[in-house]
Amino acid sequence: MGKITVVGIGPGSLLDMTPRARQAIESAEVIAGYNTYIKLIEELLGDRKVIGTAMMQEIDRCKMAVAEAAEGHDTVVVSSGDAGVYGMAGLVLELVLQQPEDKRPEFGGVIAGVSAVNAAASVLGAPLMHDFAVISLSDLLTPWETIEKRIEMAAQGDFVTALYNPKSKKRVENIERVREIMLQHRKADTPVGIVTAASREGEGKIISTLEDFTKQEINMFSLVIIGNSMTYVKDGYMITPRGYGNKEPGL
Amino acid sequence: MGKITVVGIGPGSLLDMTPRARQAIESAEVIAGYNTYIKLIEELLGDRKVIGTAMMQEIDRCKMAVAEAAEGHDTVVVSSGDAGVYGMAGLVLELVLQQPEDKRPEFGGVIAGVSAVNAAASVLGAPLMHDFAVISLSDLLTPWETIEKRIEMAAQGDFVTALYNPKSKKRVENIERVREIMLQHRKADTPVGIVTAASREGEGKIISTLEDFTKQEINMFSLVIIGNSMTYVKDGYMITPRGYGNKEPGL
Repeated sequence: MGKITVVGIGPGSLLDMTPRARQAIESAEVIAGYNTYIKLIEELLGDRKVIGTAMMQEIDRCKMAVAEAAEGHDTVVVSSGDAGVYGMAGLVLELVLQQPEDKRPEFGGVIAGVSAVNAAASVLGAPLMHDFAVISLSDLLTPWETIEKRIEMAAQGDFVTALYNPKSKKRVENIERVREIMLQHRKADTPVGIVTAASREGEGKIISTLEDFTKQEINMFSLVIIGNSMTYVKDGYMITPRGYGNKEPGL
Repeated sequence: MGKITVVGIGPGSLLDMTPRARQAIESAEVIAGYNTYIKLIEELLGDRKVIGTAMMQEIDRCKMAVAEAAEGHDTVVVSSGDAGVYGMAGLVLELVLQQPEDKRPEFGGVIAGVSAVNAAASVLGAPLMHDFAVISLSDLLTPWETIEKRIEMAAQGDFVTALYNPKSKKRVENIERVREIMLQHRKADTPVGIVTAASREGEGKIISTLEDFTKQEINMFSLVIIGNSMTYVKDGYMITPRGYGNKEPGL
């Protein structure tokens, strides 16, 4: 039996990939992943076998990767950012554990990576810092009612709120609904940061407000961070202080 | 003027530190950080100046780091995990921006690292995967009512919930209150993972349940991840599936 390992490659640049992730990729016989991510690590691939298909076939791709490992080939499945956040960690683990024990490849574990939310935050300054919620606006695998409930709870709890998959060509209304819900609980001038392609070619950042942010360019490579009641903008940086209410530390 | 950069060193091992972080540390003249973290990167320090004090003096330590940079010495402030999550990113940025412009060192930015929550999740399997909330139970800088409200909202929103600073010698009741609140919204057998010292010497993991987890060993180096209504345990791994309700993908 071979081994199958799930590897978070970080936000994009090889400078943001951990040595542990790099070693796993470089020592594997087979590398599986979405084509866009395979391209980011092209220089590490050499002439090894690559299983790279389009996004909508990710279950089949992971099944192929598990089969490769079961046939004796050490395999890694790469996932952008951290593999455990909307990534391939769960899917691969579920597929491995579904195999009968005598046909199950060794599970080499999940190698954590720099998550997209942390990469985006670092571009904006220090917008997370305190308690935060991470929510995907994609209703492909989650009913919209569940997502909307979470936005409501995040708003009421004054969580800094990071939105994955905020908008795509087909999905343009969800982000408007988020704005409406958040405006019921936060001021119109609450800072909102939009980071597109963090740590990749063409990286962009915009700092806007809850009132206006949906008028900005937001696409499927964007991550949106909505500040809490304490978040402010100074000299182009978005900052959430650590101290809260009457407990703010004296700087 | 020198430059000051905030660097997330990841959870502990140098294998989990990004090359960008390592380069920043290796090229700095002065390195500031909490002693425990300075020790983790000891082999990178060489004979450079180190500003390392105990935890409670972190504001003074960061002020000294800003002053070093203002005097012309390139300085990094290291923070464990990701510097933007309960770390030094915000504090350093605030201190830099407080300086009058003619005395302000260049801000070299925040270098994102593998966050503790992602490292802990990778040890447990794939417990995050879907929407999640991150909450610190330390009421040192945040009123307990704010924290409790957030626990309640995270519980109602069925967020996978990660708890930083779950317990210390002085603070033992907060985690019991979290258990009570969560039990009002989630089943007693909801999986709860506890990871202590992820990616460091003495790493430990326990998978328990919402009913029982507070009986387990939890300390200030632990991170607790409470599953959502879909989270399950199989063969020692904690997994939250990506699909939700009637939209679960057929594997």
